[in-house]
Amino acid sequence: MQIKLSENRYGKNAVQLSRIIRHADHHEFRQLTVNTALEGDFETAYTRGDNTKILPTDTQKNTIYALAKAHLAGAMEDFGLALAQHFTSNNPQVQRAEVTLSEHAWTHMVFDGQPHPHAYISNGTEKHTATIVQQGEAITVSSGIKDLLILKTTDSSFEHYIKDPFTTLRETSDRILATQCEATWIYSTPQQDFDTLFQRIRHTLLRTFAYHKSLSVQQTLFDMGKAVLEENPTVQEISLVMPNKHHIPFNLEQFGIENKNEVFVATDEPYGFITGRVVRE
Amino acid sequence: MQIKLSENRYGKNAVQLSRIIRHADHHEFRQLTVNTALEGDFETAYTRGDNTKILPTDTQKNTIYALAKAHLAGAMEDFGLALAQHFTSNNPQVQRAEVTLSEHAWTHMVFDGQPHPHAYISNGTEKHTATIVQQGEAITVSSGIKDLLILKTTDSSFEHYIKDPFTTLRETSDRILATQCEATWIYSTPQQDFDTLFQRIRHTLLRTFAYHKSLSVQQTLFDMGKAVLEENPTVQEISLVMPNKHHIPFNLEQFGIENKNEVFVATDEPYGFITGRVVRE
Amino acid sequence: MQIKLSENRYGKNAVQLSRIIRHADHHEFRQLTVNTALEGDFETAYTRGDNTKILPTDTQKNTIYALAKAHLAGAMEDFGLALAQHFTSNNPQVQRAEVTLSEHAWTHMVFDGQPHPHAYISNGTEKHTATIVQQGEAITVSSGIKDLLILKTTDSSFEHYIKDPFTTLRETSDRILATQCEATWIYSTPQQDFDTLFQRIRHTLLRTFAYHKSLSVQQTLFDMGKAVLEENPTVQEISLVMPNKHHIPFNLEQFGIENKNEVFVATDEPYGFITGRVVRE
Amino acid sequence: MQIKLSENRYGKNAVQLSRIIRHADHHEFRQLTVNTALEGDFETAYTRGDNTKILPTDTQKNTIYALAKAHLAGAMEDFGLALAQHFTSNNPQVQRAEVTLSEHAWTHMVFDGQPHPHAYISNGTEKHTATIVQQGEAITVSSGIKDLLILKTTDSSFEHYIKDPFTTLRETSDRILATQCEATWIYSTPQQDFDTLFQRIRHTLLRTFAYHKSLSVQQTLFDMGKAVLEENPTVQEISLVMPNKHHIPFNLEQFGIENKNEVFVATDEPYGFITGRVVRE
Repeated sequence: MQIKLSENRYGKNAVQLSRIIRHADHHEFRQLTVNTALEGDFETAYTRGDNTKILPTDTQKNTIYALAKAHLAGAMEDFGLALAQHFTSNNPQVQRAEVTLSEHAWTHMVFDGQPHPHAYISNGTEKHTATIVQQGEAITVSSGIKDLLILKTTDSSFEHYIKDPFTTLRETSDRILATQCEATWIYSTPQQDFDTLFQRIRHTLLRTFAYHKSLSVQQTLFDMGKAVLEENPTVQEISLVMPNKHHIPFNLEQFGIENKNEVFVATDEPYGFITGRVVRE
Repeated sequence: MQIKLSENRYGKNAVQLSRIIRHADHHEFRQLTVNTALEGDFETAYTRGDNTKILPTDTQKNTIYALAKAHLAGAMEDFGLALAQHFTSNNPQVQRAEVTLSEHAWTHMVFDGQPHPHAYISNGTEKHTATIVQQGEAITVSSGIKDLLILKTTDSSFEHYIKDPFTTLRETSDRILATQCEATWIYSTPQQDFDTLFQRIRHTLLRTFAYHKSLSVQQTLFDMGKAVLEENPTVQEISLVMPNKHHIPFNLEQFGIENKNEVFVATDEPYGFITGRVVRE
Repeated sequence: MQIKLSENRYGKNAVQLSRIIRHADHHEFRQLTVNTALEGDFETAYTRGDNTKILPTDTQKNTIYALAKAHLAGAMEDFGLALAQHFTSNNPQVQRAEVTLSEHAWTHMVFDGQPHPHAYISNGTEKHTATIVQQGEAITVSSGIKDLLILKTTDSSFEHYIKDPFTTLRETSDRILATQCEATWIYSTPQQDFDTLFQRIRHTLLRTFAYHKSLSVQQTLFDMGKAVLEENPTVQEISLVMPNKHHIPFNLEQFGIENKNEVFVATDEPYGFITGRVVRE
Repeated sequence: MQIKLSENRYGKNAVQLSRIIRHADHHEFRQLTVNTALEGDFETAYTRGDNTKILPTDTQKNTIYALAKAHLAGAMEDFGLALAQHFTSNNPQVQRAEVTLSEHAWTHMVFDGQPHPHAYISNGTEKHTATIVQQGEAITVSSGIKDLLILKTTDSSFEHYIKDPFTTLRETSDRILATQCEATWIYSTPQQDFDTLFQRIRHTLLRTFAYHKSLSVQQTLFDMGKAVLEENPTVQEISLVMPNKHHIPFNLEQFGIENKNEVFVATDEPYGFITGRVVRE
């Protein structure tokens, strides 16, 4: 029996890139975190320390900054496509290049109803994400949202579940539903108007979450994914991760105070971990 | 020479509280982190383990939830005042009660220009903070903003500083200025329309940051603090912490590409740490 | 074209469990984080909000604490096996149960060469991990180490790599090699003396890292995996993730000071991300 | 009434420095995070943007690396003293220089009872800290420990405390006591054998924590501080912060299982926050 390398993958992670695009009357500011990962004919690099086919991760980092000048003007997915194309076309030993991007959005400050031309405030934790995978001529683009903190104070229940000897949870017809939503969808082709689609899908996710009468996080998750697929023919499938960040009514009754779903303990841990993938048949 | 207790302080930290205020046509959702800290006649508790004057931190936590029902309806500063008042008036051994509050703001989702009545999205990392200190009848209220991520892409320079043998920084007349601003101001009296003032002060900080022609972070900080004092007579003093989150132009010239302040390395560490306190004479 | 649920999975994450095992002359203290994840016949839960087959995540959490009394006495892998067995045997709708465990180790304090019977100090960030997957009768156990911070100050070089127009890195025959190693290995069967094997494998990983003459992180990674497989016949395969936490020589020469690999900038980001899977043929 | 600058302070934070000291038969590896903070005659820098007296934070960072070659050979406190001396003696406008250091300890890996000469494993989260303050000729050195995670499974009780209408906590004569201890002590003079003292004080803290019969965290804290002062005449005073990281017995009785202080919920938040300063009279 012999021991050998199976999968290999290496790249540069957490490359912090910011970019100013200077328009006549205002600046556009972008801030991205970029990861690269290459796979390919690297067996002797691992087994013998032969670096002759290794494109150093430092060079991958430099390439990100170098290509940002010409290619990071519009959708970050297009920038990712240029990077993946660069790595595969210049390095025949690379069979698969993966570029992962995450954008930390900044909004122009607004004064007297007018956006200031060059002063910004962070949009917060929410991030726009994308992953570009190129294997030979095959290219896959997926986009997503991460750390989208959303919450509703009603229209959420959880009832009729299994009771077993370890059940202590009480059924509720009215609870807070809070989640740090992560959604990732795959486009049918790599030519898309990515920014327009991103805004549309984000809106669908929020609208469905808001108007849905939730019987469980699972059901809400499915409805959100279904709505995205129904409204966007170029989205092939969508995966959602919706941790249930519990807000638990505090027992005020023990102090003779009524708590009609008014005062809660907000908890971080433990949390329900609900995921699902919604596809077209 | 004898060994003795000098300062003492104990309380409960990181009490996570959420609150729904149910109006006729919409819900108001609030999420706070609350800390309490008591000082007083606790010497024998420390030196001999005599707990007879100790109000347990668990009880302090329960008190936060119990008082939230009646007292967390408007400004969180008023909730903090009620808590400080409760601890000092019910516990004669307490000489000083400090309540620290931090609010994680949530905004109603907006669809077709209308706020949804009970669906929310997080405002992000920015937090509204407050500290209430009660010592006998003396009460001090300070409020603030934390983790306010703001940035401007121009109108910031840094020149004419000291050059010494370890200087390598080059002067620049045009750089990105980015900071994770923390501001804390003290009110002259504990009776204020806290929420209105908070919004006004926040707006002054943003406006001054945006329109200021910065010669240094120090200068920007002072101007921001000065503007707050000038526009708000009930603010006695303000302290600002403005770490300089450097965005460093990437050297594209080494690749034959021009970088006219377009492509930057965004850095987290190290960072310039700039602070100052602005007062009335 | 119809839209449907593809994969589903839900459970409780970040259940924080601690356990005292009381021996005659000393206490054993254990601290674990446990996640559960169930998959199965949950389609109508997602598509229609039918909860009748849903075992709530709250009940999964309770089960973890309930079974800890009887089953968390020895290896945590055996505790995970009991949990997976419980969920699958009591819930016919569950086709796959996954239990993920992470142990934060504590060591008895030592005074005058003797371990104290009930006082402990944390071992730090390093964690022992395990994942148990049960699908019908098929059971897979994998174990691992996470956040193992290791470093060597020499016997590491990086040379002879590709040079392209974006190369700026200089070859080095002597550098610091630092990583936050994560290793995960799969056992051939679920009956093992897990704790003995864990200690042996950990030792092999450290020894190989220490004595290896590294030509690249890739080569070091492969050698570490290979050594584990060679010395442990019941380990089927091993995956390693070894981010390259760069320590970059600071340019002291610009100040007229020699830097013979003595003074470095320790960086967190960006980092090289090196992974590989080593298997038996 | 005029508005003016009161306190000012600026510097560089989070400078990540690593250092190899090359001995004949082994390497010594050190990893520090260093902060600098200057105060002084900087009023016009804040009020008018006059940078002529400003030593840039970038130069402060360079100075840290430059001085590390000659001055970071032994105790990091001595390195901090050299830095504070450098900043004050070369910059007459600086009235106060503060240097804060934090060391992340690494231990030589041990094989067959022998330390490996150049392979290391991290000591974990625990850090050795120090703060040097120089104002003219007056120099203060304080040292400390941070993130020291310690725990005892018995010899800790909490009883006889105040009961009020919001009390729900039950008295206990036997509980887990866990804390993430932070201790800071001030030396009477800046000439000390810092490394020897650090090891001795650390040992005293651990030993007192382990053997103490705790009636409350407050009492344990005081006894730890008192022991340090009693055994170290050159320590002038010591401050301790000991958050109470609660481990709460899980209610197994509701499932018909006995829980004799065996199974606990380990909690992060909220936590008791216990502090105190112990001094010589």
